[in-house]
This record gives sequence, structure tokens and C-alpha cells, in this order.
Amino acid sequence: MKRPVYLGIDIGGTNMEVAVVGAKGHVLARDAIATRAKKGPEAAIARLASCVAHLHEPRWQLGGAGLGCAGLVDAGRGVLGSSPNLPGWENTALARIARRHFGVYTLVDNDANAAGYGEYSRGAGRGSRVFVCVTLGTGVGGSIIVDGHILRGQKNTAGEIGHMTIRETGPVCKCGNRGCLEAYLGADALVRSARRLLASKKSSVLKKWMRERTQPLSPQLIAEAAKAGDRAAHMVFEEAGAHLGTAMASLINVLSPDVIAVAGRVAAAFPLMEPSVRDTIEQRAFAEPASLVTIVPAKLGTDAAVIGMAMMVRERAAGDRSD
Amino acid sequence: MKRPVYLGIDIGGTNMEVAVVGAKGHVLARDAIATRAKKGPEAAIARLASCVAHLHEPRWQLGGAGLGCAGLVDAGRGVLGSSPNLPGWENTALARIARRHFGVYTLVDNDANAAGYGEYSRGAGRGSRVFVCVTLGTGVGGSIIVDGHILRGQKNTAGEIGHMTIRETGPVCKCGNRGCLEAYLGADALVRSARRLLASKKSSVLKKWMRERTQPLSPQLIAEAAKAGDRAAHMVFEEAGAHLGTAMASLINVLSPDVIAVAGRVAAAFPLMEPSVRDTIEQRAFAEPASLVTIVPAKLGTDAAVIGMAMMVRERAAGDRSD
Repeated sequence: MKRPVYLGIDIGGTNMEVAVVGAKGHVLARDAIATRAKKGPEAAIARLASCVAHLHEPRWQLGGAGLGCAGLVDAGRGVLGSSPNLPGWENTALARIARRHFGVYTLVDNDANAAGYGEYSRGAGRGSRVFVCVTLGTGVGGSIIVDGHILRGQKNTAGEIGHMTIRETGPVCKCGNRGCLEAYLGADALVRSARRLLASKKSSVLKKWMRERTQPLSPQLIAEAAKAGDRAAHMVFEEAGAHLGTAMASLINVLSPDVIAVAGRVAAAFPLMEPSVRDTIEQRAFAEPASLVTIVPAKLGTDAAVIGMAMMVRERAAGDRSD
Repeated sequence: MKRPVYLGIDIGGTNMEVAVVGAKGHVLARDAIATRAKKGPEAAIARLASCVAHLHEPRWQLGGAGLGCAGLVDAGRGVLGSSPNLPGWENTALARIARRHFGVYTLVDNDANAAGYGEYSRGAGRGSRVFVCVTLGTGVGGSIIVDGHILRGQKNTAGEIGHMTIRETGPVCKCGNRGCLEAYLGADALVRSARRLLASKKSSVLKKWMRERTQPLSPQLIAEAAKAGDRAAHMVFEEAGAHLGTAMASLINVLSPDVIAVAGRVAAAFPLMEPSVRDTIEQRAFAEPASLVTIVPAKLGTDAAVIGMAMMVRERAAGDRSD
């Protein structure tokens, strides 16, 4: 008998990753190619299909393909709505195109749900009943999974944890609101915060690096400086952690999750934020749910989305067969 | 064949309400008696049982009893944990006591979930997939129902919508946190806000009433004055509505509900808040989920909890039979 495998695909503005994933969530083979978004979704998926043909082994039985994609995705209809990172791809029936090219059952979802479902099924959220995955990157995203089901809300628009208001009179966010979590914790906000704190410092590892390396300020560079003992850089994450703690305290009071995982590129800096995150939660959340929640870094790193899409399609294909 | 009926019971610090509810959620008979909390839960439930014996008709077949109760309720085990309004009732196995007295399947839940489930099954939330019920009373409570299931979180502690932080540096809340929704919208907060606004007014309907009627300030009196044209009283609800809108915008971004219902004693003042609630949501929430949510006053009034508990026990009893 052939081994059942599932495709997990992560379509970004620059690159696309594809992984062949076993039924238990292990990546068996993988590749990454340029998206070339301008040439349109049909061409991109055709190139993904030939990529998959190269990876494929005769002993595998392909059970389905799951595509994760940045933007507003109508998962029920398999359609990508708006997509700031994939200009020209708006209102594309991605699931239908993928089904034609791969010849299997296909699913489409947004990248936050893809990563959240990966962490839920194979990473930090395994076995949890109410799971929250917060993604720290350029923006702040999220995904909520209740009893194994992604909480999608209307047209898959739920999970925008970065756009909870934590301070009504706070700074303006890219979304137009004031005082969103993202306005304090997005990459731009962290860089702004570093600039502000550096302005008052005479000597600083970070200042020295910026001169010597001529590198632009980034959350990664600030984190590196904090780890090297830079006080201002450390304060950036201390303050950011307090804001993250405020948002998590609200989520704890409202959802009472078992597990909150911190994912995304900036999650590597989570240990720098962790003390102030925990202090803030202790001050702000109810004692009972706060004592019962586990807050952990995500486990799957950049594989979360491809594993998540593969596991999602595995679940769904199994469900559809049994119906 | 006998008609299946379910008991819905709402145990408050002062009074207990009991209703015999038909399978479709109609109240067929009802009564209310004093709780006499000091005499303990055993005595209270025995009195409820004799109350039910008086209400009962031979053509009814009692299918179960659901007890709603203020406090921290472990619904899975049927145990009331802490209970500020029922001193001495802590850690009582209420479901077990009730089963002994009523001789039927019993369930216990907290009052917020009871009311939320009532509105979901028979009121403002019928047919919704993600339903949020916000309760405005002395405090601000809530309940979230996803695909027909109450989102309970760990040990039934979820749903504390009143304790989302909307302003990190805001006033201290009874829960110990700063800037909770309840710190702006609880009964005490509304009264404080009215005092502040009245201090700067020379003439005011509300001031006149307070002198003439020697009534203490309450949200109900402020609402009455606002409806009679008092500008300061109107502003109390305008400002409160803006804060409620902020919290709702966060809930919309995170949960993307189909319906948000506003329940509780202060909900009668919702029309006074509604314009600023809607303006704030338009400013703060994402356009897509904001355009898809329906915000409405609750429909069942004070019957929500008894109907909710009866419907909850009906669902559960049916589920247990089919397992």
C-alpha cells in the first residue's frame, strides 16, 4: 500500500514554499521557488505543480493540497479576496486552479490560520482545547483554534489579535485605528521605540553597530543588541512585552485559552519580552485563568504554515470521506 | 404521550426564579421565591423542589433541570466554586444536590452563560455561528457561543468581556486591573461619570430630580433624564457608548461574530449609547467584519437565564441519550 502524503504550500509575495508532509506531520521533502507574483496565479501554481512532480516518489499517494496565502481568504469558497502582497491576484479562485493542476482535493486559507493550525496540530498547541497563536512579524497576526476548529468568524476575518485596542488614545495604527497592539509591537513600532530610547543614550552597542555595519534598525538587530547587554535595546522589548501582556490578559479573560504560542520572525525575541509579559498578565488578568494558561514560543518555526496546511487538508479529506 | 418540559432556574443572592419551559423555549409556568442564602444550598434547593411540585402538571414529562448561578461555576463537575453573592455556598456540588431533589438530569452554569445561551437559542442570537452576548448591569459580563457551544475556556472562566483592557493607563477596576471596560461601563462608573458631568452644569433635569425625589443616582435614573432631554445625562451614555464601541471593535477584529447582543438591566439604555457605539466601531474595526456583524438589544429580558438553562439541559439530555 502506498504511503498517504499531503502538500503544504505557503505562498508569499516573494517566495513560495512547498512541502510534502506525511500523515503524522513530518516534512518528507521540500522546495522553495520565486513567486513571480506579476505573472499571475495560474503561472505560479503551474510552476508549483512541476516542482511537486520533481519531488514526488512512486511510493506516495497524494491525498490533497493545502495552500496558505497572505491576504483575505474565503476558505469556504477557496477564493483569495484582497492580497496586498500579491498584487493582481485579487478575487482568484485559488482552490479551483490548484485542483486542476494537482488533480487532488485542495484547500486555501490565510497564512495566520495556516501557521496557527500547524502549531495546534504538531507544535506548541497540541492537545489544547482553546489555542491562541500570536504571530509577531512586520505586523501582529493571530489565529484562534477551539476544539480543533479554527475560529473563522464571518468570511474568515477573525483572529486579528494585532488589532485589539489596548489604549484608546494610543498611536495611529496602519489599519486606521488608534492604540492597536500592532501600533506598539509591529516591526515599525519596535524600530521607532528603539530610536526614541537611543536618542537619550550616549553610548550604546546598538548605536555602535549601526555606525560600523551600516545596517538599518530592525527588530532582529535590536534583539541582538539586547542580548549583548544594550540597555536601551533591552528596554524596547521590556516595554513591548508589557503591551503584549495587556493584550494577552484580555485574551485570557475573554477566551481562557490553555495555550498561547508566540510565533513569527520576531518570536525569537520573546525571551526578552517574557518577564514583562508575565508581570503584566499577573497584574491584569483574573488569577484563575491566568494560572491555567501556558505561554510558550511556537515550535515549528517557518515550517508551521506548510505543516498546518497539510494537516488541515488531511483532516478535511478524512472528514469528507466519512460523511 | 406526555409533553417534555425542562426546568430553568436562576439562583441570585436575593431571589431564585424557576420556570417550567417547553421544548421550544416557551415559559409554561413560573415562580420566584427568596433565596435565603444563609440557610445554605440544601435548604434552598429543597424549597425550589416544593415550588416545582406545586407548578407541575400531570401531562408534563420533566426532562431535566438547569441551574444558573452567579459565581465561578465548574460546569463539567456541576460545582459552584467561589460565589460572592451566595456566601457560604462555596464549593457546593449543586448539580448533585439538585439531582437528588428533582430526580432528573441536572446541569449547573454561571448566570452569564445561562443568559447568553438563552439569547442564542431563543432570542437575539438565533442561528448565529459566532455569538457574543454582553451583559450590562452592576458589572459588565459576557458569554461567547461558537457553533452552538459555549466557549468556556479553562474551568468555565472565559467570557469576561467586561475585563478587556481598553486603556492601559485607565482607572482602576474592581478586579484590580486598570482600564477595563467595566471601569468605564459598570453601574458605579456610570454614576461617577454623571457626577463629574453634573458638577459643571448649572441647570439639569437630573439635578432637579435628585433634589425633588431624593433618589440616589443610578444608571436607570440617568437614562430617564437623558430621555427627558438632560444634556449631561446624555453625555454619560455617549461617552460610555464610545468605550463599549472600542471593546466591541476588538471583539469584532478577534472573533468576527455574526451577532452581538446587549443584555442586562442597563441594556434599556442601549439606544442612548448606540450612535457612539456604531461610530466607534466604524473608526476602529476592520471594515469587512464590521459590515457583517449585527448589534442588537437582547430579546428575552430577565427570562434569558431560565430559558437558557432549560434549553441547555434539553440539548445535553438529548445528546447524552443519542451517545
